[in-house]
Amino acid sequence: MTATFTEVDTYDVRFPTSRFLDGSDAMNPFPDYSAAYVVLRTSDGDEGHSLVFTVGRGNDVQVAGVRALASLVVGLDVDEVLDDLGAFSRRLAGDSQFRWLGPDKGVIGMAAGALVNAAWDLRARRANQPLWQLLASLSPEELVGLVDFRYLRDALTPEEALEILRKPGREERATQLLREGYPAYTTTPGWLGYDDEKLARLSKEAVADGFAMIKLKVGGDREADLRRLRIARDAVGPDLPIAVDANQVWGVGEAIEWMADLAPYRPYWIEEPTFPDDILGHARIREAVHPIRVATGEHGANPVLFKQLLQAGAIDVVQIDATRVGGINDNVAILLLAAKFGVPVCPHAGGVGLCEMVQHLAMFDFVAVSGTRDDRMIEYVDHLHQHFVDPVEIRGGHYVAPVAPGIGARIHESSLTEFTYPDGPAWT
Amino acid sequence: MTATFTEVDTYDVRFPTSRFLDGSDAMNPFPDYSAAYVVLRTSDGDEGHSLVFTVGRGNDVQVAGVRALASLVVGLDVDEVLDDLGAFSRRLAGDSQFRWLGPDKGVIGMAAGALVNAAWDLRARRANQPLWQLLASLSPEELVGLVDFRYLRDALTPEEALEILRKPGREERATQLLREGYPAYTTTPGWLGYDDEKLARLSKEAVADGFAMIKLKVGGDREADLRRLRIARDAVGPDLPIAVDANQVWGVGEAIEWMADLAPYRPYWIEEPTFPDDILGHARIREAVHPIRVATGEHGANPVLFKQLLQAGAIDVVQIDATRVGGINDNVAILLLAAKFGVPVCPHAGGVGLCEMVQHLAMFDFVAVSGTRDDRMIEYVDHLHQHFVDPVEIRGGHYVAPVAPGIGARIHESSLTEFTYPDGPAWT
Repeated sequence: MTATFTEVDTYDVRFPTSRFLDGSDAMNPFPDYSAAYVVLRTSDGDEGHSLVFTVGRGNDVQVAGVRALASLVVGLDVDEVLDDLGAFSRRLAGDSQFRWLGPDKGVIGMAAGALVNAAWDLRARRANQPLWQLLASLSPEELVGLVDFRYLRDALTPEEALEILRKPGREERATQLLREGYPAYTTTPGWLGYDDEKLARLSKEAVADGFAMIKLKVGGDREADLRRLRIARDAVGPDLPIAVDANQVWGVGEAIEWMADLAPYRPYWIEEPTFPDDILGHARIREAVHPIRVATGEHGANPVLFKQLLQAGAIDVVQIDATRVGGINDNVAILLLAAKFGVPVCPHAGGVGLCEMVQHLAMFDFVAVSGTRDDRMIEYVDHLHQHFVDPVEIRGGHYVAPVAPGIGARIHESSLTEFTYPDGPAWT
Repeated sequence: MTATFTEVDTYDVRFPTSRFLDGSDAMNPFPDYSAAYVVLRTSDGDEGHSLVFTVGRGNDVQVAGVRALASLVVGLDVDEVLDDLGAFSRRLAGDSQFRWLGPDKGVIGMAAGALVNAAWDLRARRANQPLWQLLASLSPEELVGLVDFRYLRDALTPEEALEILRKPGREERATQLLREGYPAYTTTPGWLGYDDEKLARLSKEAVADGFAMIKLKVGGDREADLRRLRIARDAVGPDLPIAVDANQVWGVGEAIEWMADLAPYRPYWIEEPTFPDDILGHARIREAVHPIRVATGEHGANPVLFKQLLQAGAIDVVQIDATRVGGINDNVAILLLAAKFGVPVCPHAGGVGLCEMVQHLAMFDFVAVSGTRDDRMIEYVDHLHQHFVDPVEIRGGHYVAPVAPGIGARIHESSLTEFTYPDGPAWT
């Protein structure tokens, strides 16, 4: 008898991070980092876990989205689904009625991603492999089969994707990765709600810890940005790159003007200078702020947006996010697009579980897609890791390649209970 | 004592349209036209009604989105809100936690639109005016105050918007509108699920009824598209424009090839040739299919998308939708952008209540924004109007300007009861 999917359990989990201004930026002054958490269950007792990261209010809507899409999953044959996760992903994103609520964006897009990722977690656990290794073990043909090329073909054909994926040396790079890890940068010092002393102290610690870069939130107050950049530069010395992140607070012209003021401090990149959908706006900003790099992606809803950002030469850095798009399949598509256009991928992380999940994609990119870690690093933020069964490990400013099977999203049962909203002990 | 908002009632209303293949197209073979219906109540007993149109599954998620955002509305002072609907709209779209689920797109974006529109309904009822007339009675400064220019300024400044809105002749055009109505085209003949005989019969009826154009769904089967175009052309004669609508089924290259085959039948426009977010794709298609016009917008999530479609010269026709974006304020922004770029607006309608609602925006555009009906018409689809308290009236192929106060969204209490999902009599 073959196993079927029997249930999708969901949890509305929220961490009261706003009490300490962790995660505060110009657009998100008081976030409560949250997870719409998903457990996909099978008739033979297996489980796949995943989550969608949100910042508080609305996490219940995200949970409702997952619950609704679950109706498309329950009853399906587990082996058939796991053997063709490309078809599974297309089925969830392509349902003709749910699709109206997107397509491929917002609550329903992320809900599809959560279910796709839960299925990947199950597959990786069955294979007894961490996700990066599972993906890197797939043939170029299997990987291409994961991607929906319908709207991407004008920028990347399946044949071009195959060619990228046939790059030799996967094994050597996997060995290298296991030995050396993957470079990280840290956003921990730079939250807008931290005072100058805390900024200086954490910046120095970042250097001592071996991080490749630090990142500062900007866009609240221009004088304060200049002061904080000076403090950070003094703390880290002349050589360590400092990126800045405006979290979408500016219009196009404002971004260009503001960055002209910050330019003397040589920011390594400006992240989210404006609205995430504004491809042409990013292109204009990039032209104006050169040689400062332009980075975006954590709010990039689907591969078609990334396709256009690359086609328009609008960005220097592709910031994939583990839970924003329609799951791992969409992220494989984005990695392939970035490789085709030769633009480095530096994943967005932090939040809840984003470090744990997205590291797999960056590592798979190194081993099997771009084949390089040059100009690449994964964001790291130092909180909420204690809630994860397989928390990330940072050593000498590098992510240590995870060896535990799965996609990294599993939260401790005790944390799920404590932080369930609104009835968990943390909230009552 | 001033009144406050006390409650937001929501209804999951679904009409079993899939049983008759009304509304069937290449992407949506079996839609059940639905409404996430909203009643915004005040402490003095007033009500504002609005809805979000969906096509069935997921309507409950849309309802959940509205319910969640309602927490931002309940308790607010009614007069303060209605006096500054620009601030109200920014408050709903800009909430730093809910915003993460968009921004300005998908379930949470449309939920904000529903609440903004319910407030407009209340304001119009208090003013005893239909929405188009209320909007057309506002000063250029008041209208500009409705729009969030943060991400639009690089294409349209408030000063340019004021100039557009200071166009003289509002009163004459309002009189003209009340006398002549607004041209309509009909999609009723062209659903993909209709057989050839029904297509021919309904096409002939459309001519007899005085419609300015008919529209055919295409993209399912190329031979069938050619055959159906022939049948429709024979039925309507050589002069009536026939538009075609692919509902996003094609990639960019496929759209160009397919349209080359249909070109001999001189389609007036190709609607939704590809993914709605693909600005650069639409630009490429437009260049290739010229002189066939390119139209899109019913899935355009926010004004930034429309801004870019116009900046890139990607479209010939702007298809606003009453419930896709963040409400009437966003649609005012889009009308102003279209006027700035000189591109005609031909609203998307049909569905449930979209005709009733969107006609107000087209009429306001004529009276106060573009100042013309040239090359402009509102889509009309001939079903589900009986459920509305103020159904549209079509006379001689024209929308009759509505005179009932409000935004047109109010559904009969009896219909709400009968079609409530899943417990209403229509579903049990």
